[in-house]
Amino acid sequence: MLLPQTLSESLTDLRALLGERLSTAPAVLMQHGQSESHIRTRLPDAVAFPQDTAEVARIASICARHRMPIIGWGAGTSLEGHALAVHGGLTVDFRLMHKVLAIYPEDMLAVVQPGISRERLNEDLRETGLFFPVDPGANASLGGMAATRASGTTAVRYGTMRDNVLGLEVVLAGGRVIRTGSSAPKSAAGYDLTGLMVGSEGTLGLITELTLRLQGQPEAVSAATCAFPSIAAAVDCVIATIQTGLPMARIEFLDQATVAACNDYSGTALPLAPQLMVEFHGSPAGVQEQSERFGAIAREFGSKGFAWARAQEDRSRLWRMRHQAYPAILATRPGATAIVTDVCVPISALAQAVLETQADIAASSIPGPILGHVGDGNFHAILLVAREDPAEHATAQRLAGRMAERALRLGGTVTGEHGIGLGKLHLMAAEHGAGWTVMGQIKRALDPHNLMNPGKLVQQK
Amino acid sequence: MLLPQTLSESLTDLRALLGERLSTAPAVLMQHGQSESHIRTRLPDAVAFPQDTAEVARIASICARHRMPIIGWGAGTSLEGHALAVHGGLTVDFRLMHKVLAIYPEDMLAVVQPGISRERLNEDLRETGLFFPVDPGANASLGGMAATRASGTTAVRYGTMRDNVLGLEVVLAGGRVIRTGSSAPKSAAGYDLTGLMVGSEGTLGLITELTLRLQGQPEAVSAATCAFPSIAAAVDCVIATIQTGLPMARIEFLDQATVAACNDYSGTALPLAPQLMVEFHGSPAGVQEQSERFGAIAREFGSKGFAWARAQEDRSRLWRMRHQAYPAILATRPGATAIVTDVCVPISALAQAVLETQADIAASSIPGPILGHVGDGNFHAILLVAREDPAEHATAQRLAGRMAERALRLGGTVTGEHGIGLGKLHLMAAEHGAGWTVMGQIKRALDPHNLMNPGKLVQQK
Repeated sequence: MLLPQTLSESLTDLRALLGERLSTAPAVLMQHGQSESHIRTRLPDAVAFPQDTAEVARIASICARHRMPIIGWGAGTSLEGHALAVHGGLTVDFRLMHKVLAIYPEDMLAVVQPGISRERLNEDLRETGLFFPVDPGANASLGGMAATRASGTTAVRYGTMRDNVLGLEVVLAGGRVIRTGSSAPKSAAGYDLTGLMVGSEGTLGLITELTLRLQGQPEAVSAATCAFPSIAAAVDCVIATIQTGLPMARIEFLDQATVAACNDYSGTALPLAPQLMVEFHGSPAGVQEQSERFGAIAREFGSKGFAWARAQEDRSRLWRMRHQAYPAILATRPGATAIVTDVCVPISALAQAVLETQADIAASSIPGPILGHVGDGNFHAILLVAREDPAEHATAQRLAGRMAERALRLGGTVTGEHGIGLGKLHLMAAEHGAGWTVMGQIKRALDPHNLMNPGKLVQQK
Repeated sequence: MLLPQTLSESLTDLRALLGERLSTAPAVLMQHGQSESHIRTRLPDAVAFPQDTAEVARIASICARHRMPIIGWGAGTSLEGHALAVHGGLTVDFRLMHKVLAIYPEDMLAVVQPGISRERLNEDLRETGLFFPVDPGANASLGGMAATRASGTTAVRYGTMRDNVLGLEVVLAGGRVIRTGSSAPKSAAGYDLTGLMVGSEGTLGLITELTLRLQGQPEAVSAATCAFPSIAAAVDCVIATIQTGLPMARIEFLDQATVAACNDYSGTALPLAPQLMVEFHGSPAGVQEQSERFGAIAREFGSKGFAWARAQEDRSRLWRMRHQAYPAILATRPGATAIVTDVCVPISALAQAVLETQADIAASSIPGPILGHVGDGNFHAILLVAREDPAEHATAQRLAGRMAERALRLGGTVTGEHGIGLGKLHLMAAEHGAGWTVMGQIKRALDPHNLMNPGKLVQQK
């Protein structure tokens, strides 16, 4: 934490730069001190709303002079407390940097500022016939999605932020500005700094501009839900589907408890059974062929048939239901809060990982529906705990911990897409061993005074 | 360079570890002091042939003690002198570490040692129905391909080494061993060290094991050559094809001079015109549909029709011809050597980049056929110069330099796939600006004594 005198000097300098766009109002601090998850509130000392890269660089320079921590803020939709100011300091909220700077339809690229939301970008792209495919569900900011290496329902087809960010502009500690990558589809020119920044959770720098790969809107899209007699049957169907190389655009799993919650919340009437939600993208003939091949595989695993959603409107309803699974599950236990945790395992270990996790939760005292982007081996448990019940919180943390350990034991990772933040920092050593030390060396090389989102991702001294 | 006394002590320690598997024989040094390109010979002081990771770690430890440079060596097929011992030291040749350690068909992964060649790996995979897709032409080692972020003819469909390496084991300076990545398809757990190592050209560590993504062998494959009335027509056809989202497995460009050289060398009889070579992978119906859609696009750009190669044998002959384009072009000028250079630009700039490059070469005194993986915006010029003619060498270097500058001006990169090595180090500052300084900071953090492939990739003091 900064000494009061130092803090006061920093705020004077920052106010001289930003005027009204620096806030220390309690409501603003509170808004930036909370996360969407169970992680407890940590207030920054102030919040800045910069308008352009030059301002961000000057903010970083002022903060370096006063040794004031800097934490980036996008839409605040992180689930692991990534953007909480654990050592106080300045939260840099990118809401005013929300422009699409350029669209290059021929190169299928867009250059955007970090504060733009995923949904807004896709609205702006609609007329071009292109779209940005990464879809974490929440209407996150693109800067935040890059910083946390987000993915979501479509990663099985289009990849994660790792695959869809071609270049960045980044403000480093002290205010240096670098540009990474180029607009060429590939490069063999030096260290992949774009890849290093994507997923660095604001600990190496603040992303001030992104060059994103776009995809052509598919000519034809078809989606379906498909019920299975058991979790094992549904997951084994996913494994078989992925292994045949069928280019699924989405393949999502919902356990029976999730289905029940979604039906209640969204007014759908899916059969109460483990379900897969699938989507196919391609030419009309291609989508038809893929649907038929998937149908044949699903029947082998005992599927009871499909509910198709071919019209845009029906598909939107379906995916809206899926994206509202989180509030739907929360609504099943009034007064509860959720510990949402995700892991990712090799596809071959998916059935074991899901079944063991389900059994573990079932043997506990709390409910925990399971759902996920199973085409990537990625699934979530939404552990519902009474808000003020420390015993239930402890139970949930133990379940989440065992889920992470199980993923590591099966060759996977403690987080497929939610990231580390505060919630999983204690698992980094187990996952990376000596590699975690290397991450710390890189951090110290680029941010020797530990000003960029301190308290996150690397070993704390 | 090491002092004679220090060198002698290091060699004593290394010999105690490796016995006969340490060589200082002049023929061995010479073999490891040359590259396949025009870059001049630089001999290491010794060559080590380790058998396992533990030995590589002990080698790194001995070298650290004596401050002896360490340079990795795969198959020696690099085109920019990446593995030349510019400051002397120890070349670590991975030829004895050539095993496939495990194949996981369900996860579509293979774990291999770095010395295995691409062709050998694919032979070992044949029975599994899987293959490793990255194909740089040369029968490179997988370790070398990862270290240089190789790509090649299939990157347009399957990506480069960046996309196809899921995890690594790396020996760092001093002998620390780290494992990066996991066997899960994706992860959001910390800095992407796999991505940082891929393309680091041996300057951060030696790759001792790779976890690779495999692909299912396509059910159906179809390939064709297709002649165009002009380079512009061929390249514009590529741009249109990529923009329609047609999932080409390969789309290669050969200018007329390349076609003539290939016909002479490989006994083919392609029409003397700019050609595209294309390949489609998928289901039989999918391949049929893709071929028809590509045919329609090609006709719009004046293509004179296709020569199809549907049988495996015909396709092999076709791609063998393509992969022999380099010796074929060399053979057109007996006694010449080649300066092979590659750049990569945004697809929208491809026609301009190719046409300006061709005009620039045509206006010079030397021949320089152009070909490339144009689906990625990536193309090569093979500049043929009389072996002992400094004026021609200088002309070629000027042409290559202008090609790189042109690529940067058009938003691209100075190398799409050949890497930096010695040949393009002088272009790093122009491409990366302040980002190049960051690369140097990362290098110094992980290798403070500059022992891992010194003289490469980062700024030299």
